[in-house]
Amino acid sequence: MLGARAQGGWRALRRCASLPRAVRLRVREALGAREAADAVRVQGWVRSVRSQKEVLFLHINDGSSLEHLQVVANPSLENRDLTFGSAVEVQGKLVKSPHRKQNMELQAETIRVVGPCDIWSFPLKMKERHPLEYVRQFPHLRCRNNTLGSLLRIRSEATAAIHSFFQNNGYVHIHTPIITSNDCEGAGELFQIEASSEVRGSAEKTHFFNVPAFLTVSGQLHLEVMAGAFTHVFTFGPTFRAENSQSRRHLAEFYMVEAELSFTESLQDIMQVMEDLFKTVTSTVLSKCPRDVELFHKYVAPAQKDRLEQILKNKFVTISYSEAVEILKQASQTFTFKPEWGCDLKTEHEKYLVKHCGEIPVFVINYPYDLKPFYMRDNEDGPQHTVAAVDLLVPGIGELCGGSLREERLPFLESRLQRLGLTDAYQWYLDLRKFGSVPHGGFGMGFERYLQYILGVDNIKDVIPFPRFSHSCLL
Amino acid sequence: MLGARAQGGWRALRRCASLPRAVRLRVREALGAREAADAVRVQGWVRSVRSQKEVLFLHINDGSSLEHLQVVANPSLENRDLTFGSAVEVQGKLVKSPHRKQNMELQAETIRVVGPCDIWSFPLKMKERHPLEYVRQFPHLRCRNNTLGSLLRIRSEATAAIHSFFQNNGYVHIHTPIITSNDCEGAGELFQIEASSEVRGSAEKTHFFNVPAFLTVSGQLHLEVMAGAFTHVFTFGPTFRAENSQSRRHLAEFYMVEAELSFTESLQDIMQVMEDLFKTVTSTVLSKCPRDVELFHKYVAPAQKDRLEQILKNKFVTISYSEAVEILKQASQTFTFKPEWGCDLKTEHEKYLVKHCGEIPVFVINYPYDLKPFYMRDNEDGPQHTVAAVDLLVPGIGELCGGSLREERLPFLESRLQRLGLTDAYQWYLDLRKFGSVPHGGFGMGFERYLQYILGVDNIKDVIPFPRFSHSCLL
Repeated sequence: MLGARAQGGWRALRRCASLPRAVRLRVREALGAREAADAVRVQGWVRSVRSQKEVLFLHINDGSSLEHLQVVANPSLENRDLTFGSAVEVQGKLVKSPHRKQNMELQAETIRVVGPCDIWSFPLKMKERHPLEYVRQFPHLRCRNNTLGSLLRIRSEATAAIHSFFQNNGYVHIHTPIITSNDCEGAGELFQIEASSEVRGSAEKTHFFNVPAFLTVSGQLHLEVMAGAFTHVFTFGPTFRAENSQSRRHLAEFYMVEAELSFTESLQDIMQVMEDLFKTVTSTVLSKCPRDVELFHKYVAPAQKDRLEQILKNKFVTISYSEAVEILKQASQTFTFKPEWGCDLKTEHEKYLVKHCGEIPVFVINYPYDLKPFYMRDNEDGPQHTVAAVDLLVPGIGELCGGSLREERLPFLESRLQRLGLTDAYQWYLDLRKFGSVPHGGFGMGFERYLQYILGVDNIKDVIPFPRFSHSCLL
Repeated sequence: MLGARAQGGWRALRRCASLPRAVRLRVREALGAREAADAVRVQGWVRSVRSQKEVLFLHINDGSSLEHLQVVANPSLENRDLTFGSAVEVQGKLVKSPHRKQNMELQAETIRVVGPCDIWSFPLKMKERHPLEYVRQFPHLRCRNNTLGSLLRIRSEATAAIHSFFQNNGYVHIHTPIITSNDCEGAGELFQIEASSEVRGSAEKTHFFNVPAFLTVSGQLHLEVMAGAFTHVFTFGPTFRAENSQSRRHLAEFYMVEAELSFTESLQDIMQVMEDLFKTVTSTVLSKCPRDVELFHKYVAPAQKDRLEQILKNKFVTISYSEAVEILKQASQTFTFKPEWGCDLKTEHEKYLVKHCGEIPVFVINYPYDLKPFYMRDNEDGPQHTVAAVDLLVPGIGELCGGSLREERLPFLESRLQRLGLTDAYQWYLDLRKFGSVPHGGFGMGFERYLQYILGVDNIKDVIPFPRFSHSCLL
C-alpha cells in the first residue's frame, strides 16, 4: 500500500490540474520578465478595473511587489464579480508593454474570479489613499493597503538582513527565553503569566512553573550566559512592557535585536557593531526594496531619502553624557526639565542634542553610575561617577539602541547586588564571573523604532503587523 | 564639541590597545588558516592543560567551533590560574601543526589569564563526558559543554537555513503576535497574561488589554490574514502550551516554523513545501556544521547519519488516514488503544506506521472531519467524511509537522463556526472569505522536534537553550 493515495487525497490533488500547460508566475516575476511568453498564469487580487468600449484593463497584485501587473482583456471577459478586491486567476500571453511606465503586461485569454469581494462592506476602496489611522482599525485587512504592504515587505527584508549581518560576522544565534522567572529588573512594567486553568481555577492557587513567571523585557542576561561559551552571540525576538501608554513610541509587544560580545574591553567596539549593523541592514533594505522604500520617502516622509544617504556615508558622532549636559545647559531653549548632571535625559533633551549635532545619529556615552542598572561596568572615575553605557539617539525617535560594557569583576558585581538585595536571585549571574569571566559588553536595538526611523513613520503601530498596546489586543 | 570624546570615554576606549599589532583570530579562523602567521592573538576558555617537563600544552575553545586550538608553550608560562575553565588570551605564532589530527597550532609567546575559574565549585570537569541529564541542572553553564555547544551552533545554522529557504522562495516573513485575544482553539492548555501590577493589585481587577489575553499557540490564523495580501508568507517564532507534562517530547515554550500559501488547491503542494523545507534545511546543516553534526551521529545516535542520507535521497511516502487505520488493524501487534476509523492516532500507532513504512518520514493525509479543527477544508466525501489535513510522522518523534488546506468557502465555514458557537469571535476570520477569498493552505513544523529528529536527541529539553516546562523555569 506504500505510496498509494486515498481516494479523497487524489481528488484534492487533481483539483489544480485545470490549466496544465501555463507557467504560473508571481506578479514580480511577470513584471521583471526579459521575454514575452505565450502561456502564463497569474493569480492575485484586483486593484483596479477600467472598462472601455474596446478593451478592459485590470491591475493585479499578489503582494510580491508594490507594482501591479496590468492585464489587457477583451471586454467580453468582464463579469459582475470582477471587482476591486476580488481574487482572480488570469491566463494569457505575457508581452512587452507599449507603456513607458511598465515593462510587461498580460494579454488575457481567460479570467477566472476565484473569490469575489463584497465591495459595499469592504473597508478599502479602489484607488483611495487611506490614511494609516483609518486602516489601523482593520488589522485583518490593512496589509492589502499599499503602504502596509510595502512596510511589511521591508520589515521582512530587514529581518533577513539582520540575521545575515550577524551570521556573516561569526555570531551564534540564540533563542533567549520568552518566559522567565527573573523579575527584578523591570518591576511594575512586567507581564506575569499563568496557566489559564490556574487563573480560572480553584481558591488554592499554584504556579504552573512553581514560581511566578514573566514575559521577558530583554534577552541580555541570557545572552551573557551564551557569550561565555560562543564569544559572539545575538538574538532577535519579541520583548514586552506592560506600560500604560498609547504613545506613538511604545508598544506592549515589540521586537529587539540584541548582541553580546566577549573579550571586549572597549565601549568603542560595541558602538562599532551598532553602527555597522545599522548601516549594513539599511543599505541592504535600500537595495533590495527600492520601490517599497520609495513609497515612504515620497509620500510619508519626503527628504528622508537624502538624509539617510548622508548618514550612511558619515561616521556617527559620539559625545559623553557630561558633554551632553553642558550642551543642554548652554542651550538658548527652555526645557520643561532643567538639565542637570545626574538626571536622566528626557525626550526634549534627546531631541535638542540630535538637532544640535545636525539631525544625525548621536552616541551618548558614560552615564552617571546611579542612573543605570547593576550590570553596567563601573568606570571608576570621579567625582562624577559614571558607567560604560551608551545610547544611540536618532532624529524623530530618541533612543534607538542602548548598550554597555557589563561588570565582569566579581567583587564589584557582588557589592552592587548586595546593596540592592539581589544577591540570592542572581547567584547564577555571579557564577558567570567565577568561572572564566571575561570583559564583555553588548547592546539592544528596537526593531520597530529602527523601521520608524529609516522610513519616517510617525506611529510605531504602523510598523508592526499586529500592534499590542494598553487597552488594545485585536485578533 | 562634536566628535570629541569625554575623558572617561577615551579611557575606556584605549584599554584594548595593549596588544596592538597581533591579529585577533577566532579559534575557527586559526584552525582553518592556510598559512602560518607571526603575530596572532586568540582568546577563549581553556579546555585542557597538560604540563610536561619541556612543554606546556593547552586546548583553547571560543565557541566558534567544536575543535579546540592547541597551544604549545614554554612551561615557564604556566601559572596557577591557568586551569580548566579559565579565560585566556594567548599571543604568539600560528604554525602548521606536526600532528595529523589538526591543521594549525599556536606557539605561545604570552599567555594572559583574563578570568580564572574556581575549578572546585565549577560543575564541569576537564575531559569528562558529562551526561546531558547532568548538565541540564546548570542552565547558565551547560552551553560550555561540547554537546550543548554543538547543538546550539547547529540550532543557529538551522535557524538561518529556515529563513533562507523561505526568503529564496519568495515568502514574506511575518512576526505573528505572541500575545493574542484568541482563546477558542486551545482551551485549557493556554497561558493567560496580565500586567503584574494587576495581578498583585486591587480587588477590582481590570485587564491591561481590556480583554483576557493569552500566549499564542500558533500563528496560523494571523498568517492566513497575511496570505491574503502576500500570497506566500511564513513565521518562525515561539509558541506556548500550558501542558502539565514533563515528557521528553513536550515543552511549555517551543519554536514553530509556519507557512501559509494562497492559491493552493492541492494538499500535495503543501506537502511538497514541507518536504523541500526539511530536505533543504537538513542538507544545509549537514554541509555547514559537519563536525558538530558528527558529534551527535557518533556519540548520541549512531547510525542516524546513514538513515538521514537515505531519507534525503528518497521521496517521502504518503498514505491516507483510512489506509493507516487498515494497516493498524492488520498489524500483529496489540495496541493499548484499539485502532478504529474516527479515532485519533496515538503515539503507539504513529510508531507502528513509521516502522511499517521502513523507519522513514510518512505523510498521513485526509483525517476524519470530526477529529479536526474548524478551519480545515471539508473533502465532501463519504460515508467516511474527511478533511484535507496532513501530518508528517517521523521515526522516534511522531508528529513533526501538521498542515491542511483551509476552508476558504464562506458557507462551509459559517455553518461550522455557528455549530461551535464561535461566529461572533471569528467575524474577522469570516471577513477573509468575503473579500477576495482564495483556496489556501499551510503547515507548521516543530523546530525542537526537527532538531531532535535529525540529531537523534532523545529529550526535547536538550535542544533548546533554556527549556521551560511544568514546574521548571530556571533563570
